[in-house]
Amino acid sequence: MSDLAGAMTDAAAAVDKQIDRLLQMPDGPERRVYEAMRYSSLGTGKRLRPFLVMQSSRLFAVAESCALRAATAVEMVHCYSLIHDDLPAMDDSDLRRGQPSCHVKFDEATAILAGDGLLTRAFGVLAAEHTHSDPAVRSELVQALAEAAGPRGMVGGQMIDLIAETTPLDIGAITRLQRMKTGDILAFSAQAGAILGKAPAPLRDALRGYGHDLGLAFQIADDLLDVEGTEAEVGKSVGRDVAAGKATFVSILGVERARSQARLLADQAIAHLVHFDGKADLLRAVARFVVERRS
Amino acid sequence: MSDLAGAMTDAAAAVDKQIDRLLQMPDGPERRVYEAMRYSSLGTGKRLRPFLVMQSSRLFAVAESCALRAATAVEMVHCYSLIHDDLPAMDDSDLRRGQPSCHVKFDEATAILAGDGLLTRAFGVLAAEHTHSDPAVRSELVQALAEAAGPRGMVGGQMIDLIAETTPLDIGAITRLQRMKTGDILAFSAQAGAILGKAPAPLRDALRGYGHDLGLAFQIADDLLDVEGTEAEVGKSVGRDVAAGKATFVSILGVERARSQARLLADQAIAHLVHFDGKADLLRAVARFVVERRS
Repeated sequence: MSDLAGAMTDAAAAVDKQIDRLLQMPDGPERRVYEAMRYSSLGTGKRLRPFLVMQSSRLFAVAESCALRAATAVEMVHCYSLIHDDLPAMDDSDLRRGQPSCHVKFDEATAILAGDGLLTRAFGVLAAEHTHSDPAVRSELVQALAEAAGPRGMVGGQMIDLIAETTPLDIGAITRLQRMKTGDILAFSAQAGAILGKAPAPLRDALRGYGHDLGLAFQIADDLLDVEGTEAEVGKSVGRDVAAGKATFVSILGVERARSQARLLADQAIAHLVHFDGKADLLRAVARFVVERRS
Repeated sequence: MSDLAGAMTDAAAAVDKQIDRLLQMPDGPERRVYEAMRYSSLGTGKRLRPFLVMQSSRLFAVAESCALRAATAVEMVHCYSLIHDDLPAMDDSDLRRGQPSCHVKFDEATAILAGDGLLTRAFGVLAAEHTHSDPAVRSELVQALAEAAGPRGMVGGQMIDLIAETTPLDIGAITRLQRMKTGDILAFSAQAGAILGKAPAPLRDALRGYGHDLGLAFQIADDLLDVEGTEAEVGKSVGRDVAAGKATFVSILGVERARSQARLLADQAIAHLVHFDGKADLLRAVARFVVERRS
């Protein structure tokens, strides 16, 4: 296993343990919503966002227990967004990470509540004392995550994505959409270590820039997988964008140009890390990984 | 107009202005989710939760601008919960506050996103510097609201409420359900002023107790309105619980005992305020109001 694969596996296992700890099941009938939250957040996924939080935290010698809580909060927000995006009224996807989507496994109402529960819990985790001894840091994390996940970020991006099903977007509009829908949370994740470590603004901005470029590279790779991957490899429905006649980076640029654009963005992401030494090597490696991945 | 009615109207107007300010519409196509968020949060509603935040803040001489931001955040969370509860997969209500529900006015996907957006934005508002100069206070607000709104509170309560449609609950289980679904947020609202004012623990606990009893009284009154009110008065669908054969305080206790129980709880709520002088008179008055209201 490469250093990157090993580190990603380790981070994923640590996040899994932490989610398990933070979502302990109660005895009452509300247990069902916990089952759904756990189903959709435990045991699967690349855990890319938590990995970025953990790695950016290493740059500033942030205590691992603090980094891990912030990483877990981001992953909870990511999992909530997948649950809601998969709903019949949204993208109507039955398959997620190789398993039935939350609303298929449980039911729509439970899935809506499980998403709501994960989102709410994530902010509670960030704001709790264990996440950082300095409440200013905790407040900043909450504020930055709310900005990235909210209507100016992820929620707004998903809104535009739904509109894009009936209104054709040009490349500029698609870039903006993806920046909001995926990029802002990845940028938050890459920046989280700098917030936790109270790093100076230029270093925060560098990590933010890295996250944004990485996010766009990641999304183009996702579009390529939707065209070239198989359901078994990717673990979710593929070919949906083409079937829907939806404009994507690939439909506009074509496969070859999209691929070279993704690689360019990965280079650009790495270029933001110029101020960091070898400690940032795994952040560099993951930028390569997101464009070359097969799932 | 009574002092209470006047104060509630003033608070509602101030909250409205604040929501308008916090949900300024962008130019991009994500504007649609803002339209839905604004539709479901502006201009209507009793604004009971913000009123509790404002009044409890007065007890500790909290700056009004701070109290208003916290009040608005709580109302955003309340409005998100109404949007999601009304969805076809949940309570399937077409009418809310005398208007078409969000998913009827827009569509289901937009309504889901509008709820997500309001919830996320609420935490961002609480965590922002304008809400309080002390970040420890902001973190505490975020943590307490996440607890009250999350799977141990409101989200868990709504889960149990859905289960109650097919599994009969006894009076103890209904009390627990309503405590989670409505009581925890009302208790947070009543306690918010004490958090903002850094009040000693016994005073916080008193306000928390007040909010919990008020919440239960409020819910019993709601059940009574579902039986006795008309749609035009109440502004939402009525008679639904009876039609669904769902156990409520009224179906178990009967109308008369339910009404006297609500009044008892209002007395009990007021009894928690014994340590406060005339400044708490509007909190006392609102406890009477929630059980006697006709909408």
